[in-house]
Order: sequence, then structure tokens, then C-alpha cells
Amino acid sequence: MQDSPFQPGATRTADPEFTRAEVALANRNSGALLELLDCDITPTGTHYLLNHFDVPVLRAQDHVLEFDGAFDAPFTLSLADIMAQPQITLPVTLECAGNGRAGMQPRPLSMPWMHEAIGTSEWTGTPLAPLLERAKPRSSVQDFAFLGADYGYDKGVPHYYGRSLTPAQIAQLDVLLVWGMNGAALLPQHGAPLRLVVPGWYGMASVKWLSRITALEARYQGFQQVETYRFRSHDGDEGTPVTQIHVRSLMKPPGVPDWFTRARRVQAGPVALSGRAWSGGGVPIARVEVLLDGEWRAARLSPPVGRYAWTRWEIDWNATPGQHDLACRATDAAGNTQPLNAPYNLGGFANNAVQHLSVEVAG
Amino acid sequence: MQDSPFQPGATRTADPEFTRAEVALANRNSGALLELLDCDITPTGTHYLLNHFDVPVLRAQDHVLEFDGAFDAPFTLSLADIMAQPQITLPVTLECAGNGRAGMQPRPLSMPWMHEAIGTSEWTGTPLAPLLERAKPRSSVQDFAFLGADYGYDKGVPHYYGRSLTPAQIAQLDVLLVWGMNGAALLPQHGAPLRLVVPGWYGMASVKWLSRITALEARYQGFQQVETYRFRSHDGDEGTPVTQIHVRSLMKPPGVPDWFTRARRVQAGPVALSGRAWSGGGVPIARVEVLLDGEWRAARLSPPVGRYAWTRWEIDWNATPGQHDLACRATDAAGNTQPLNAPYNLGGFANNAVQHLSVEVAG
Repeated sequence: MQDSPFQPGATRTADPEFTRAEVALANRNSGALLELLDCDITPTGTHYLLNHFDVPVLRAQDHVLEFDGAFDAPFTLSLADIMAQPQITLPVTLECAGNGRAGMQPRPLSMPWMHEAIGTSEWTGTPLAPLLERAKPRSSVQDFAFLGADYGYDKGVPHYYGRSLTPAQIAQLDVLLVWGMNGAALLPQHGAPLRLVVPGWYGMASVKWLSRITALEARYQGFQQVETYRFRSHDGDEGTPVTQIHVRSLMKPPGVPDWFTRARRVQAGPVALSGRAWSGGGVPIARVEVLLDGEWRAARLSPPVGRYAWTRWEIDWNATPGQHDLACRATDAAGNTQPLNAPYNLGGFANNAVQHLSVEVAG
Repeated sequence: MQDSPFQPGATRTADPEFTRAEVALANRNSGALLELLDCDITPTGTHYLLNHFDVPVLRAQDHVLEFDGAFDAPFTLSLADIMAQPQITLPVTLECAGNGRAGMQPRPLSMPWMHEAIGTSEWTGTPLAPLLERAKPRSSVQDFAFLGADYGYDKGVPHYYGRSLTPAQIAQLDVLLVWGMNGAALLPQHGAPLRLVVPGWYGMASVKWLSRITALEARYQGFQQVETYRFRSHDGDEGTPVTQIHVRSLMKPPGVPDWFTRARRVQAGPVALSGRAWSGGGVPIARVEVLLDGEWRAARLSPPVGRYAWTRWEIDWNATPGQHDLACRATDAAGNTQPLNAPYNLGGFANNAVQHLSVEVAG
């Protein structure tokens, strides 16, 4: 079984070209269209999508959410029970923890995101914390484990996708149980009929097709919690968990594209540049700077779309003929700034390095 | 300007690995999730998406469709005018002409589709032919040109995306002017607020963001009509146009996947295999055969989802432990059968070669 595709293989490559497995993942998963960054809410169907296993097609009328383990008053809720709870709609920017992975050298072998694993949706649901309280978790609980209905193998280990949060994290985060997206029912590929949304954290925490919440009196040891989504510097490094989204900005590519290379051509003269910036943990954006003609200049910021959603930025540029390197760099209110080069980690997580964009200005 | 990304570069490669430009396209465009092949109608947001240029965001209330050129009674219609026409909703299977391109050797440098550039939606609109008639095309008209609002460069040539159909093709095809998809308004990335759907043809004919219809007394010479979407055997070959969808089938991958390789593992015993088959031009599927344990066996067919939409197939398999090569092969009522290897063409179009799937059966 040495050669079984179910056994761990190479995990990174120094080859600048990409393997067929990476391309198959890129065809299957989908990124945002950066030209739509002008939309406060990402149009349905263009929000990034990263699913580990097959999308399960679940019937809303049959779906239940079980609360089990170290609860004194465990229960099982139907979707109708959950939808009868107080309803909230919240715009949230979600980003895949692997966004920017293809910019790391050596390149971790996984979904080869460049910049596009991002999206902002209006999520409709109910706060999770009151429901957890109602089930009376014992004071000895160390983790709440959230299990999805999606099942498969990773590095030879079969498992349902699962993640956990501690009681302290539940108290601090505005975690939602979500059944709606952009005013409509959740779509199958986004976790229908029920998912978590953990605002301010990378997307791996927002478990889709949520089926079970288990209160544990020990730390959760699920594969997706302890084996992946960790910042590791070398093989054998236990690492630290990936949690909050790191500060980041993107530019709406100006001008018009070439079909294959996506190179951009702009007419000389005044150009209105714009884009989005966001950070994790509900921390607002303090500043966006744009590299224009070799100089970092401050962009104007719009009010954020929501506490957990991105901020629009814009700046005027007088484009002169020739080839130009544009870039944007955000700083959040906690003082975190995007690096020019992100520190390396084995999984290629949280690469929030400054995006560069080459633009040809025609005279 | 030799090195400008706006000038024609290499068009194919013998390298089995993929370039960064191909991966950027794969991240941007998106394929169907094959595990959702069980759905008669592809869930919104998982229909394949291939956009040449940036998605234009058009306001429905401002949008007009101009009929101009060699019409005796040309006019301009608002979206409301068009939506006041007789309404029809039709399930149509669309496939990108480049589907399967990554399976060709040498590989054409373009969007590296494997099998997933497919989808079936319920399109709501009005037949195009009566509106063309109302504008009174002159008897000398040779082509109707359909212009989108999407603009960019391909091989150095700037253009709006455009395609044409002859009067004879208009008379033969059930072309729709479409404003709705799956019971909702068209999404921006699918051509909002107005697009063509040309049932039975590859997707390139179904012009999105439709803004103008020009009647021409000569053949249309638009880039997307004469430079691309042609079956060419060698450089300099004028080639023949890509038109109707070729017969094809796909299998819903059985069992459960490995995250990275998408390899499949199935438990030994009875397995219900299923998938979809379709052909172009409204020709029904006559037969699907499935390769099981080295033998081609006939699958059961469900009635097609529509005249221009796919057919579900299924077959029972008694899976025995070990590694298995599965495949499916469709034949349409006109006698066209999927080849084991598709004939080569420079653009990598219409590769309808039989899909193979390797499955590990656990005892």
C-alpha cells in the first residue's frame, strides 16, 4: 500500500509548475472574481468555495442537530426548532486559511490559491452560545466539537470534517448557527441546511453540514484540529493553531484583462483604483496604502460593511505610459500590517503578503 | 513589445505539469462538483463558469438590447420590454467547448478543464426568433452578430466578446433570450441581466451580458468566431467551427474521496453507480455502457430532464476488493459514441473521450 493515494505522499514542492492534482482541486474549488470586489456583498456563486470532501446533499426537513457528550441537559433540534430561535443577519468576510498558498516557496501541495479565496456574504442564523447554555455544559468541559456530515480521507485517516472551540472562545466569539445566505436558503455547497459561521476566523472553523455538537471533558483530537490548520515550521513541529484572519487587502484589477495571462492594460490618465481590506477578530482597518510610481500613498476608506466584514478603499492615480507595479497594503487598528513577504509555514496558511499587480499603461 | 503579455505566446505544451497562468484561470473559473451529478438541476453556484474577460456589473433597469445593421425595422428594447414577451422556462445542459482540454497531449494552453465544465440549469426567457423577425432582417443578411458587454484582449486583439449565428441556424435552433436561472434573476457571473442560451451547442454560443444584435450582409469576422472555437489540426489551418455539443457521459464518483488526490475508496459489496449522459442538438441518449471488471455493461437510463438536458444513468456493481478502473461511454440516437481517445485539435475543444475513474475497493 506504499503507493496508495490514500497514504501520505509528498507535502511540498520547489517546482514552480503545478501538479495535476493541484489543478483538479483548483477546477473543483472556486475563487472570487477580483473584478467583483466593488460589490459590498459578493454575488452568490462567486464566494470562494473550499470543500475537503464530497458535498453531502441533506434534506432540510430531515436534518437534526444533536447536542451530546458532557451536557447535563442534552437535546436534539430539528432545523425548524433552530429557525424558531431569535434570528440575526450579519455580513461576514470569510477567507480560506490557505489563501495565498501558491505564493509560498517551497509550495505546499494542496489547493493552490493565489489571492482569491475570499468572499463576503450576509449570513442569517441564530447565535450559538444561548443554545449551548441551554444544554447545560458541565464545568469540566474543555472543548465543544462541531461535526459536519462530510466524510473522507486525508493522509490515510478517514474522518468526518470536525473542528472545536473552547468555552472561552465561545464566550468571546459571535458564533452563528446559519441557515441562510444572501437572503435565500443555504446552497448545498455552502453547507445546507445548517452550518457554523465563526466571524473573524479563517473559514476552517465555520463547519458546514453541521450535524453534531459534542461537549468534551478533554481536548478535541479531530484530524482537522490537530493535524492540519497549524503553523508549523518543520516536519515534526507541533505548531500553533490557525485561528483569526490576518490583516489583508486586495485591489480590483484596473483596466482590461488579457484572457489567458490576466495581464492588465490601462489607458494613460486618471484611473480610480479601489479594492477591499479586512482583518480578523472584529478588528477594524486603520489604513490602506497603495504603491503608485514607487511611493506608498494613503487610500481613502469607506465605513466597513460590518464589524466582521471588509472595508472598501479607493485612491486616484494619474497613470503614465509604461509598465507599472501596483500594490496595496493594509494595517488594522491593532497595528498589524501586511508583510511584503509572509513567513513560511508548512501548510501555506495565512499568507497575507502584499498583492502586487503589473499593469501596462497605454499612451 | 515581444514580451508583452498582450502578444501571442506559446499556445501548447508537452509538459505534464501546469503553468501558473493555467492555475490562475482554474482558480477564477469554476467547475461542477461531480458528486452533485445526482441533481437533475445543478445547484446554483456549482454550474460551470468560464468567463473570458472581467464580469461586467450591469444595472437591469438601465440595460437595453439594440437591434441594428441590416434590419428594415431596427429597434432598441429595455429589459422590461423583453420580459413582457412570452415567457418560457427550459432545462438546458451547457458544456464548455474546452471541457477535457487538460486530457489532450500536447496540452493547449488555456483553461485546463478535466471533466467538470458542465451544468444543467432551468433558464427563463423568451424565444429570440420572433424578435428578430419583428426587426425585419433583409433577405441579404448572412449573419446575426451577438455582442456582449465584456471586453478585453486575446492574442493582442482587443474586442467585446461576440459570436454569430446564420439565419438558417436561427431557424433551426431554439435560441432563447434569457433573464432568469433556476427561478431567480440571472447572477452577474452568468450574464445578468440578459444573455443568450443556445441549447444543444457548446457554451461559447450563449453570449452573456448581451447588448447588441447586428444583422450583417457579410459573414461575421469577430475574434471569437473566426480566431477561436475552431477545430484546427495544425498552425495555419483555417479549421472548422465548433458548434453542437458532442455526446458525453460522466460518473458520479462512488465511495468517499481522499482530500488531495480525489482518489476514491469504496466498500466491497453492492454499489449503485450513477451518472449523467448528454449530446448536442437535441439528440437523445440511446445507450450508456459502464466498464465493470473489464466488461462493458449497459446502464439503465432515466427519461431525459429535457429535450436539451442530460439523462441520468445507473447500474449496479458488485465491488470486489482491489484496485478497479471504471469508465462510462454514451451513444446518442444519431449513433455517435464517445471515443476512447479524442482526436487532437489545437484548441483542445470537444474532448469527449471516455472518463476513467480509479477506485480502491476495501474488503
